[in-house]
Amino acid sequence: MEKLFIIKIGGNVLDDPQALTAFLKDFASISEKKILIHGGGKIATRLGDKLGIKSNYVQGRRITDESTLDLVTMVYGGLVNKQLVAGLQQLDCNAFGVTGADGNLIQAVKRPVKEIDYGYVGDITPKDVNVPLLGQLLYGGTVPVFAPLTHAGGSMLNTNADTIASALAIAMGTQYDVRLIYCFERKGVLLDVADDSSVITHLTEAKYRQMMAAKVLADGILPKLENAFSSIRQGVREVLIGHAGDLIRNTGENTAGTLITAA
Amino acid sequence: MEKLFIIKIGGNVLDDPQALTAFLKDFASISEKKILIHGGGKIATRLGDKLGIKSNYVQGRRITDESTLDLVTMVYGGLVNKQLVAGLQQLDCNAFGVTGADGNLIQAVKRPVKEIDYGYVGDITPKDVNVPLLGQLLYGGTVPVFAPLTHAGGSMLNTNADTIASALAIAMGTQYDVRLIYCFERKGVLLDVADDSSVITHLTEAKYRQMMAAKVLADGILPKLENAFSSIRQGVREVLIGHAGDLIRNTGENTAGTLITAA
Repeated sequence: MEKLFIIKIGGNVLDDPQALTAFLKDFASISEKKILIHGGGKIATRLGDKLGIKSNYVQGRRITDESTLDLVTMVYGGLVNKQLVAGLQQLDCNAFGVTGADGNLIQAVKRPVKEIDYGYVGDITPKDVNVPLLGQLLYGGTVPVFAPLTHAGGSMLNTNADTIASALAIAMGTQYDVRLIYCFERKGVLLDVADDSSVITHLTEAKYRQMMAAKVLADGILPKLENAFSSIRQGVREVLIGHAGDLIRNTGENTAGTLITAA
Repeated sequence: MEKLFIIKIGGNVLDDPQALTAFLKDFASISEKKILIHGGGKIATRLGDKLGIKSNYVQGRRITDESTLDLVTMVYGGLVNKQLVAGLQQLDCNAFGVTGADGNLIQAVKRPVKEIDYGYVGDITPKDVNVPLLGQLLYGGTVPVFAPLTHAGGSMLNTNADTIASALAIAMGTQYDVRLIYCFERKGVLLDVADDSSVITHLTEAKYRQMMAAKVLADGILPKLENAFSSIRQGVREVLIGHAGDLIRNTGENTAGTLITAA
């Protein structure tokens, strides 16, 4: 199977112009097939403040009301996505900015209202990914760049970027040898959160369960790891958790971050 | 050659929810291959006012400074484009929202600074259109929906939607039997601007020159007609100027608007 890198960057890279420039240069230089998924960053919050759109929380959970949906559609789907695309084009990377609505790439279900109405939030599963069209884009030499938006029922919907990255990796894993790379602000999964040199270079589920039992992992990393192992269980060959600055090493054999595999 | 409709809608449709709903339904029902180009509408101005971004004019010409560029990238490339795409998806039309940056679909040149610096404005010619990739999107069953944005030198650029529609029509005219349809607020080119039943149903360049000499055409329509004949001279088979509400008739033989052909 052909290699495919599915790479997710978060706000910490988007909000730092120098880190972003370096990241885009590294991303553009990857010669294998690749997909980028970006999160939001602080710009949506800043713009929302200016427009008087307040973040709305119910029982500690963020709600996407209509103004917030418009805001993220503008900022994630418009400004951030197109700036990344234009920047990559300048680096001879044929980026193609998309949301889940475009070409019906990811058809979501609006989150059902139970105790909380989350508003315009899209829940997705890997089977919602339009694998043939994504394959066609990749085969045509373009590099899909996903904003964290999906759609259902005629409306755009807000969907978590990590979730999109995982769904894409699982769906494309049936046809490609996928490495799913989460870029975050640490070097990888750390044994000691205060020590960046304590990266756990390789994790399997068995080793992870042992470490969980021994309570040596920081709480903050657990959702990322649960997400990673869920992807592995659903057929993704490799998940890598690492720093955006280590992208090139993390696309190779001698990875700098934490490489997660089934065994 | 296969038929291709290239259809441009302006702010008068985007700003009127009822007209927009009707238009999208009609557009979705066209069974031939099709491309949509949308303009901006008042929402960018409204949002710009809220954000304190002032429209900037020099010698009567609008300037796209950096904040205006961010604004139109958000509003045209994000909000308007994705709302149209989600709406069309709901109507079983496999819309795919794009700008000229995506897949390098339209590579512009930043307008050279002469007496006026127009700022972030992209000038384009038909040879700047990525015909193979557009063909691939159409062939794959998707319907490109263009926001009036292009790119150059790592930056997004503001480009007039009528100009994009014309460039797309000329470029695609080498491979498709193109009818370029401009939807505006009138039934067509009128002999008497006060009388919507005075539509000139067919115009050739010879007839147009005669009417110009006889000064029977209103000044307001002249730029649209110059644009139309320029497209015809460069190989577009038919240009149609008409009302958005007449779209279905205007994609057929018995058109309601003004059909413009070479002879």
